[in-house]
Amino acid sequence: MHDRMQTFTAEELNKIHDASMDLLKTVGVRFDDNEAIDLFKSNGFKVDGKTVFFSEKNIRRALDTAPSNFKLVARDPAKSIAIGGDDFALAPGYGASFISTIGGLQREATLADYQKFCQLVQTSKVINMNGFLMVAPWDLQAETAHLDMLYSNIVFCDKPFMGSPVSREATHDCINMLGIVWGSKEKRREMPVTASLITPLSPFRYTAEMAGSIIELARYNQACIFGALVMAGSSGPMSLAGLLAQQNAEILAGVTLSQLVNPGSPVIVGGTSAIMDMRTGCLAMGSPEVPKLTSATIQMAKFYKLPARAGCCVTDAHLTDAQAGFESALTLLTAIRNGTNFILHAAGILGSYSAMSFEKFIVDEELCCVVIEILKPIEITDQSIDIDFIKEVGIGGDYLIQTKTLEQCRTAFFLPNMVNRKGYNGWQDDGHKRIDEKAAEVINDRLSSYVKPDIDPQIEKDLLAYVQKRKNEI
Amino acid sequence: MHDRMQTFTAEELNKIHDASMDLLKTVGVRFDDNEAIDLFKSNGFKVDGKTVFFSEKNIRRALDTAPSNFKLVARDPAKSIAIGGDDFALAPGYGASFISTIGGLQREATLADYQKFCQLVQTSKVINMNGFLMVAPWDLQAETAHLDMLYSNIVFCDKPFMGSPVSREATHDCINMLGIVWGSKEKRREMPVTASLITPLSPFRYTAEMAGSIIELARYNQACIFGALVMAGSSGPMSLAGLLAQQNAEILAGVTLSQLVNPGSPVIVGGTSAIMDMRTGCLAMGSPEVPKLTSATIQMAKFYKLPARAGCCVTDAHLTDAQAGFESALTLLTAIRNGTNFILHAAGILGSYSAMSFEKFIVDEELCCVVIEILKPIEITDQSIDIDFIKEVGIGGDYLIQTKTLEQCRTAFFLPNMVNRKGYNGWQDDGHKRIDEKAAEVINDRLSSYVKPDIDPQIEKDLLAYVQKRKNEI
Repeated sequence: MHDRMQTFTAEELNKIHDASMDLLKTVGVRFDDNEAIDLFKSNGFKVDGKTVFFSEKNIRRALDTAPSNFKLVARDPAKSIAIGGDDFALAPGYGASFISTIGGLQREATLADYQKFCQLVQTSKVINMNGFLMVAPWDLQAETAHLDMLYSNIVFCDKPFMGSPVSREATHDCINMLGIVWGSKEKRREMPVTASLITPLSPFRYTAEMAGSIIELARYNQACIFGALVMAGSSGPMSLAGLLAQQNAEILAGVTLSQLVNPGSPVIVGGTSAIMDMRTGCLAMGSPEVPKLTSATIQMAKFYKLPARAGCCVTDAHLTDAQAGFESALTLLTAIRNGTNFILHAAGILGSYSAMSFEKFIVDEELCCVVIEILKPIEITDQSIDIDFIKEVGIGGDYLIQTKTLEQCRTAFFLPNMVNRKGYNGWQDDGHKRIDEKAAEVINDRLSSYVKPDIDPQIEKDLLAYVQKRKNEI
Repeated sequence: MHDRMQTFTAEELNKIHDASMDLLKTVGVRFDDNEAIDLFKSNGFKVDGKTVFFSEKNIRRALDTAPSNFKLVARDPAKSIAIGGDDFALAPGYGASFISTIGGLQREATLADYQKFCQLVQTSKVINMNGFLMVAPWDLQAETAHLDMLYSNIVFCDKPFMGSPVSREATHDCINMLGIVWGSKEKRREMPVTASLITPLSPFRYTAEMAGSIIELARYNQACIFGALVMAGSSGPMSLAGLLAQQNAEILAGVTLSQLVNPGSPVIVGGTSAIMDMRTGCLAMGSPEVPKLTSATIQMAKFYKLPARAGCCVTDAHLTDAQAGFESALTLLTAIRNGTNFILHAAGILGSYSAMSFEKFIVDEELCCVVIEILKPIEITDQSIDIDFIKEVGIGGDYLIQTKTLEQCRTAFFLPNMVNRKGYNGWQDDGHKRIDEKAAEVINDRLSSYVKPDIDPQIEKDLLAYVQKRKNEI
């Protein structure tokens, strides 16, 4: 197909790769974790203080063991998700501190909000993975909030979920809680059930929290999502080509650590690098550079035959308006169409990650369904063309009155959940609402349709006991 | 690049083509115009009453003469547009009867509204072609309204524009008015300056208005845009494969007539076929089937090496909300990315063509700019990667304070016109507006920035005299 979107040539892909290799060899990457440094040293890497230097051979060895695809097992096995190839996960927004109300006014998020998002994910027809840190609950102690969020993830929802890499200890808590649900840590090693977001601190650093989490996650075979968020002009160069080389180097360094810890442990690579708006100094997530970088980043992941990650439905709008709609659509269509395997922020995020919105969650779900439908192929066969039927109806004929039309009308087309399809008068009679106003109305129905998924009462009790024990310790 | 959007195989393209050939041969197409029928007869086509049957040879001969690309010359030659290959035109909405106000309330459109849209097109940085029937002015007599619209198109704007194929006479008026501006009809033959929308009456008919307009347009070398709008389940089959075969047959029949009249006369082929929503009975322009059909239709146009037409920024929303935003974005990104050459409805349309909105026009312009930017390639060269600079900034360095960053910051990134990029506090201080509210505010500035383009006073006088003369005659 004719495609005006840039497809990198092999030469261009290799040029980015070569630049990354050069940066890894000469600049290196700092890991603020002694175990990580020891691991690199004992595997013969060149290390200077906390800075690790990588040869192409080091990187190639890691790429050889990192899997191209894997399965995330859900508490309800029927909800497990394949990651890689044509399969992908859709996870909700991540990292917001506030709840955006319908008029765009922000308020501090609470654990109750977090749990509502767990319920929305559980009842979603399209969001197939639960998040972590969808909103940061202000009513909890920061040091132990991850315990309540993990508990909510496990108990409120039986889909695969994201882990808690806020520190090495928090990651270890996640591993322990997985052990309570799925059996011993050793059993855990065989089966990834979570994916955790690992973000390098650009340029060229992994904090103690991130480096420690990589080690814990890889050791217990839980997936690391290496999600670079380089901000062009601030934590990376203005040149998008340079930025791609930098983020690629950072990602590959993280992948290499994970494969040293546990060769074959699952990884997902990509990111949502973006630009800094030069007039406001703000991160511009809705900018056209984001889908452009997203497409480039997916192509780099495919070049390495690794599952690709993208951040979608991102916007700089602070409410669910037409800007939020079109910015979300542009990243989502680009990422899904171009073959990504893990989509973060697929529902609910607003204001360059500053807030989550219940209304936008509902609207984004509809958008996700629409994009998935757009990408379903049209079957072109003699049977589907059904030329005899077209001949029968003939010139000036009316398809509406044909029996075949009546037979097909319930299944032929995509049925939307909530977009307006009424004519002007019908829409006026319905109260002439914007889609965000309609979304606000359906949230309560959605939440009241929620049924807590089955869980062994003993497991639930043990999880709660673990949370309590750890809260007392921390 | 990995692409989850369906790329038709050669076998699938040929299957659609073969089905169209079968339909053209056995069902035929009705043309309600005697000159058209005589032309087909004198060229040896099988004709039965007003129904024309086409052999593959007839179609191949037309495809041999129809050009793959051409240039639409503007009154300001610097604003001429190339159509074909990588070049494309963006024209505003078409066919609406109402103006949608910011709350979604519709009112009857007037000539003053029409002229405002001409002024918006003239001052647009991205809409490079003026429309026709952007809104139908209710304050004019229907029989002569095309004269005032054409006059406005020519005098208010010096970009290429769409002609008036509402009847053969109206098309002839257009040709005559072009003659006043660009010289004799004979000169006009050498230079297309307008493109006119020809819509078959599905299934398999061309009305007297359309057939007559094709003849007039082709004769004077003005472009025909064959824009099928088959409504699956009503004027075509529910099966999208069958619909594609039907619309392709209808389009090729029209192209063949144009090439019989004047071999080599410019055509653009495509359409905005859509589905009927089975719950409301309404045309569902925002449905996922539309981008899917758009992609398929562009692939058929490329198969025939003809310039492709798409309808974009379409939505079923009645106001400029998040639904309007994401539905508009999905059709626009798909069409431009997949290589279309003429985009109708690129700005302003709402409610499945029922209304035009000044606010949506402004928002759509921003969306068009963003999509065009997304598709600009990232230059991957040693110079653009600039690895020495990344090495220099190094681990943990700050790009913000680098001289190079300051030097590049004005030109490196896309500068939006009106989307919000402010942080939450800045946006609150600015009055926490939705983008449609911001758009409403900028319209007056845009209109007051409008400067009427230069025109020879004698030409303007002659155009006005022609309009008056024809109004007296009709």
